[in-house]
Amino acid sequence: MERDASREPGIPECPVRQSRPPMSELRQNPFTKEWVIIARDRARRPDEFKSRREPPERPAADPSCPFCPGNEALTPPEVAAFRVGSPNAPGWWVRTVTNRFPALAPEASGDRSGDHYFRRMAGVGRHEVIIETPAHNLPFGLLSNHQAQEAVLMYRARYLALREAPSVKAVILFKNYGEAAGTSLVHPHAQIVGTPIVPEHLRAQYAVATQYYDDTGGCIYCDVVKEERKAKERVVFEGEGFVAFHPFASRSPFETWIAPTHHVPSFGQISTDEAKRFARVLAAVLSKISRHLNDPDYNFVVHSAPIEDENKPYFLWHLSIIPRLTTVAGFEIGSGIFINTAVPEETAAYMNERD
Amino acid sequence: MERDASREPGIPECPVRQSRPPMSELRQNPFTKEWVIIARDRARRPDEFKSRREPPERPAADPSCPFCPGNEALTPPEVAAFRVGSPNAPGWWVRTVTNRFPALAPEASGDRSGDHYFRRMAGVGRHEVIIETPAHNLPFGLLSNHQAQEAVLMYRARYLALREAPSVKAVILFKNYGEAAGTSLVHPHAQIVGTPIVPEHLRAQYAVATQYYDDTGGCIYCDVVKEERKAKERVVFEGEGFVAFHPFASRSPFETWIAPTHHVPSFGQISTDEAKRFARVLAAVLSKISRHLNDPDYNFVVHSAPIEDENKPYFLWHLSIIPRLTTVAGFEIGSGIFINTAVPEETAAYMNERD
Repeated sequence: MERDASREPGIPECPVRQSRPPMSELRQNPFTKEWVIIARDRARRPDEFKSRREPPERPAADPSCPFCPGNEALTPPEVAAFRVGSPNAPGWWVRTVTNRFPALAPEASGDRSGDHYFRRMAGVGRHEVIIETPAHNLPFGLLSNHQAQEAVLMYRARYLALREAPSVKAVILFKNYGEAAGTSLVHPHAQIVGTPIVPEHLRAQYAVATQYYDDTGGCIYCDVVKEERKAKERVVFEGEGFVAFHPFASRSPFETWIAPTHHVPSFGQISTDEAKRFARVLAAVLSKISRHLNDPDYNFVVHSAPIEDENKPYFLWHLSIIPRLTTVAGFEIGSGIFINTAVPEETAAYMNERD
Repeated sequence: MERDASREPGIPECPVRQSRPPMSELRQNPFTKEWVIIARDRARRPDEFKSRREPPERPAADPSCPFCPGNEALTPPEVAAFRVGSPNAPGWWVRTVTNRFPALAPEASGDRSGDHYFRRMAGVGRHEVIIETPAHNLPFGLLSNHQAQEAVLMYRARYLALREAPSVKAVILFKNYGEAAGTSLVHPHAQIVGTPIVPEHLRAQYAVATQYYDDTGGCIYCDVVKEERKAKERVVFEGEGFVAFHPFASRSPFETWIAPTHHVPSFGQISTDEAKRFARVLAAVLSKISRHLNDPDYNFVVHSAPIEDENKPYFLWHLSIIPRLTTVAGFEIGSGIFINTAVPEETAAYMNERD
């Protein structure tokens, strides 16, 4: 069962209710065909998910931070930067370096070895860190418009660069924010990985999208976005050519998608103008999450078409934000069915009421 | 990226190594076709994964614990017990109750509603808690042989009971142990859920297993178990008709499978004798994990064939144990590719050296 990370242990009260109708509902994710359980019985009011931690003290610069200006020698050499002056010195406003512990690296071949049971290949690919601002203490949601746009333009530049590497079949852009999301580095940064295989995960989504296209002639992602905009009850932001919503079959509380309102399969295909508008939307949505949930830890991920499928009309790039408010437990691990203890319509209303 | 939960934040040292060959390896899970990254570069020595927490103080009984004898009124009425005396009073040695916050409940129909985009159904199914012992402070690995056997016989009894419910299409048996695994209840217990749909997760595994059967005439699970026993380097226990190993493509450090050495698709199909032998193996393996990793939090899950497929020769029931030593982060969420910071051969050797 998923457990609310913020819920304290306690003694259950005596429950005299074994013959009530179930208060939970199953909802099917239209993109993966996976079901989730929306557990109304366990659900708490949206404001109960607010993080209870103290707002952390964050200095504007930290002399021991490898991402702060002046400490460029503490990272691997930069592979790209928006800057004045020479590489690997101050003067940059967005800076990309190879990950110091790369999960994947360029110097290898993508040849498979081993048999059907033990198939393997070298860890070939790319793994970079995008330092989004020189300011140690400015999370993405607090960046100036211009700085957020520059960060997103760097996302796109690195997406396009990784896309060209011959070993790379798919590009994953993501951010880990906070300890519960998998990072202890405070300085604002995102990561980008080019994988030498198309993730099975994405193959499965393509199978669903392809069938839908064959059945209807449409893009399942675009059609769901259209339906979410029509239904309105889960929409938390609309404008600039993007829509943000809490998906109907969200796997966890306050899961938020940002999707373009017209068909673009890959993040690498967005125009400069779209990138700038997207930066504003992303900053606005992250800032809302931070304000209304008291700066929770979160991950975000940009989902894009695999490179070989970029021109098929089956996919819509989008970004999903997963606030890390709950713990995945044995049932989810065993079944792949997530239990969401919040109701997406209610969490969306909560966000909208507070604007 | 996955992060080691026990690793403290710190300043990276200067890394002068951008042109080294990659130290990571991709390995393919033969059952799901998903790849994992075994990150040798980030890997730490197996003993560095040991939990650093103090051994918790656990009294033999806790007057406020709803699962302790004498507190039967604090739980929903029991649905099964191995006991002397009347229901819902002391005298039991294994006791099953409906979950107080059931994710799924019997009183509903499995009819779908909604359209292609927003498909839903009532949360029909079963959700029970199996209290494995009256002793508040005895984790499964410390139970007497007899008590462990009785617990597993209850697992089987409830598996078979849930299997008979007309709404139930698959049964998931699992345990959450410790806060990081999703529970704050110390008293030893497992949970069992009957779902009204076959998880997509399991459908995908069946597609792979079916193709393998069509190609080879064999069961992919039985064949991999045979290969793991032959390779030996990842095996941590063998005997009683079962084998335990750290899978070749483990998604996280010290992931451990226990599988029968002959073909049985569903946990519900095991004999009484097999159940008793399995109980001994499970207790031995959990005890080893607890001793050598300092009582880590973990989940275990029993994977079984969906009910409608129990008699197909494609699946082997097995139990997987996931010690919760690391944090899943954005890359895993986005790609489904897990980064494992330990090498399965090394973690298996670590376990074996310490016996």
